[in-house]
Amino acid sequence: MTPEISIERLMASVHELGQIGALEGGGVCRLALTDADKAGRDWFVERLRSLHCEVFIDAIGNIWGIRAGRTDGPPVMIGSHIDTVATGGLYDGALGVLAGLEVIASLNASETETDLPIAVAAFTNEEGARFAPDMMGSGVHQGALDLGDMLATRATSGDTLVREELRRIGYAGQAAPMTPSAYLELHIEQGPVLEAEGLKIGAVTGVQGIHWTEFTVRGQTNHAGTTPMRMRRDAGQVGFAIARLADEMAQELGEPQVATVGVFEISPCLVNVVPDRARLTVDMRNTDGDVLTDATERLLKRAQEIADAAGCSLDIRPLARFAPVVFDETLVTRVETAAQARQLSVKRMPSGAGHDAQMFAPNCPTAMIFVPSHKGLSHNINEHTDATDIEAGAQVLLDVVLDLTGGLK
Amino acid sequence: MTPEISIERLMASVHELGQIGALEGGGVCRLALTDADKAGRDWFVERLRSLHCEVFIDAIGNIWGIRAGRTDGPPVMIGSHIDTVATGGLYDGALGVLAGLEVIASLNASETETDLPIAVAAFTNEEGARFAPDMMGSGVHQGALDLGDMLATRATSGDTLVREELRRIGYAGQAAPMTPSAYLELHIEQGPVLEAEGLKIGAVTGVQGIHWTEFTVRGQTNHAGTTPMRMRRDAGQVGFAIARLADEMAQELGEPQVATVGVFEISPCLVNVVPDRARLTVDMRNTDGDVLTDATERLLKRAQEIADAAGCSLDIRPLARFAPVVFDETLVTRVETAAQARQLSVKRMPSGAGHDAQMFAPNCPTAMIFVPSHKGLSHNINEHTDATDIEAGAQVLLDVVLDLTGGLK
Repeated sequence: MTPEISIERLMASVHELGQIGALEGGGVCRLALTDADKAGRDWFVERLRSLHCEVFIDAIGNIWGIRAGRTDGPPVMIGSHIDTVATGGLYDGALGVLAGLEVIASLNASETETDLPIAVAAFTNEEGARFAPDMMGSGVHQGALDLGDMLATRATSGDTLVREELRRIGYAGQAAPMTPSAYLELHIEQGPVLEAEGLKIGAVTGVQGIHWTEFTVRGQTNHAGTTPMRMRRDAGQVGFAIARLADEMAQELGEPQVATVGVFEISPCLVNVVPDRARLTVDMRNTDGDVLTDATERLLKRAQEIADAAGCSLDIRPLARFAPVVFDETLVTRVETAAQARQLSVKRMPSGAGHDAQMFAPNCPTAMIFVPSHKGLSHNINEHTDATDIEAGAQVLLDVVLDLTGGLK
Repeated sequence: MTPEISIERLMASVHELGQIGALEGGGVCRLALTDADKAGRDWFVERLRSLHCEVFIDAIGNIWGIRAGRTDGPPVMIGSHIDTVATGGLYDGALGVLAGLEVIASLNASETETDLPIAVAAFTNEEGARFAPDMMGSGVHQGALDLGDMLATRATSGDTLVREELRRIGYAGQAAPMTPSAYLELHIEQGPVLEAEGLKIGAVTGVQGIHWTEFTVRGQTNHAGTTPMRMRRDAGQVGFAIARLADEMAQELGEPQVATVGVFEISPCLVNVVPDRARLTVDMRNTDGDVLTDATERLLKRAQEIADAAGCSLDIRPLARFAPVVFDETLVTRVETAAQARQLSVKRMPSGAGHDAQMFAPNCPTAMIFVPSHKGLSHNINEHTDATDIEAGAQVLLDVVLDLTGGLK
């Protein structure tokens, strides 16, 4: 009997986990290491056990279960996270974990054996909404983040530490981290591209590099009526010009370059006063690290010229500099081929957001599968993906896992 | 004996009145109709009486004193205000009133008679800092504002009314308003032009027209990483483009056109979220009402095109539309001529700020005299004008008053 995804069983899981931390009016709040997160973890552990998996918990609270293979080789891992932002949806993170459980359930139901074991993992604090940085559990697990530093991380609310909360909810484990033979993650796109182009599957090629830069402009306040244009040092107009420049540069460079001015503040912020201070952030992303670095350097140079010409001072502060992550070419092709074999429309695309997968990419063959997000909504209680799209994504995941683990050979 | 300004006596007055409502560290707070304002009024009335002027107080609390002339014709009025903003300087308003007192004192000292009487006035609530609108007293006095409405005006703090405060401080008078034969006001420039150009006197040609417009842009929030540029409806970028356009239009039109974006807010104001809302204000001013109206219309049209092209909606709300005020050409020339006669460098210039004088301009020949403001500072405890500049301004005022009243003929 060939294993097949049961979309009824998978959607039942989505709605069952979605009850834990459910918000009135829809959506969920399972901030990392809260009571709701603990309840979600307990549910996941129980589900793993009921699927006859051996359960492991490491020192940063990552949970994974292993379904034994015919051999003792390193497992193929399916992972994601079950923590959410404060007003999260049902799918971001949870879908990848639940699809992993569904893969195991379908193998069990069809009594399918695989050569390699299969692991299903939920990583601690992917969102970073309660404790920064994000992707904390997978980062520690794969050695990109220091365990001691992360355990000592204070909540953004200031009242507790990761270490304290892990102990409190009973998820400070002792299992040794492990590197799988391959890592796969199914995730909603969190963007509008697949839906807009009428596609079912994204074969994710990697994660965009991210440069965040903060610009603080200082000029001089002046009376809006009595100060001729030529005598002004208008910090606001310098800020507006930098903001427009970032947008124009991204338009000129073309896809996949993006640039976003998300924060913009001026002071004193009065109708009839020329502002003496402006603060803005520019978020630039590209899959090509060289193009991204060049774009950022040109932006900084031009911003300084704009400020100089206006008689304003400019402080430039890099807030983040992440190089692009490139997923395994062979594995990305396997995802693409698996989708095509099921007559599912598929597109190679980068991920614009960060994911646990990027922590595994340096250490083992890694890829991701995207399914459409309705209107690109994410981190939003109205996050939605159609069940048929979820079924397609889970089926591609199952097919690639069978391919990698030597199932049905 | 020819009357001459005594700068020692005038500066002593500046510092004496400056003690009333003095702030620690410099500057004054004499918000309209407060106890400090009452103390300033009492001081002014006492000073008028000591100069043998007859004192009048009208229903909105304006105070004026009249020095009799050889005839009973309508007086030449010298006016301004003694109320201040919460962190005001020593000169804004006060200088015009004190220079009026100094004119009377110099005429008395030199035993100079004039054909026409001379009035020195302090108008209620010019600043509008505690009760809106500003220029309240002069507006009521000259019929531009309704007395009943203004008496019923509630403080911005909400706790009292103009009527109640006038009664409480004893300045609800009964004198009939009057239209002088001419109105003159000496004031600090409140801008940087005279100082920057090394000039002593501004012969003010009128008050710029003012158009305030609020723009509210609505688009859609999106993830800064996952949303390609072509799929965005970025309210922030529409706002930035409108802000830059306003500045560019003012630069192109040239002086005296000015444009200021003083307020700019975006939401949700997060580094990695495309903003769905932006709100900004544009303050445009010009002495030519047609040019100003045309500029505003073009800005509104272009702003709508920018929003449409970006798939955003735009709400446009006119916050203020004030037509320019033109002062009396003959009287402006008299100011200019008087300055030249004293070898004082002089420039014709518009006022970028509002003044009590503009309420008189429709009803009688009106002009203003500007003296330099150090660094253009105003509404600031560091407001400063050199004593030699004050002396020059007061002397020009005296000369024009003598010219108009038939003194020394």
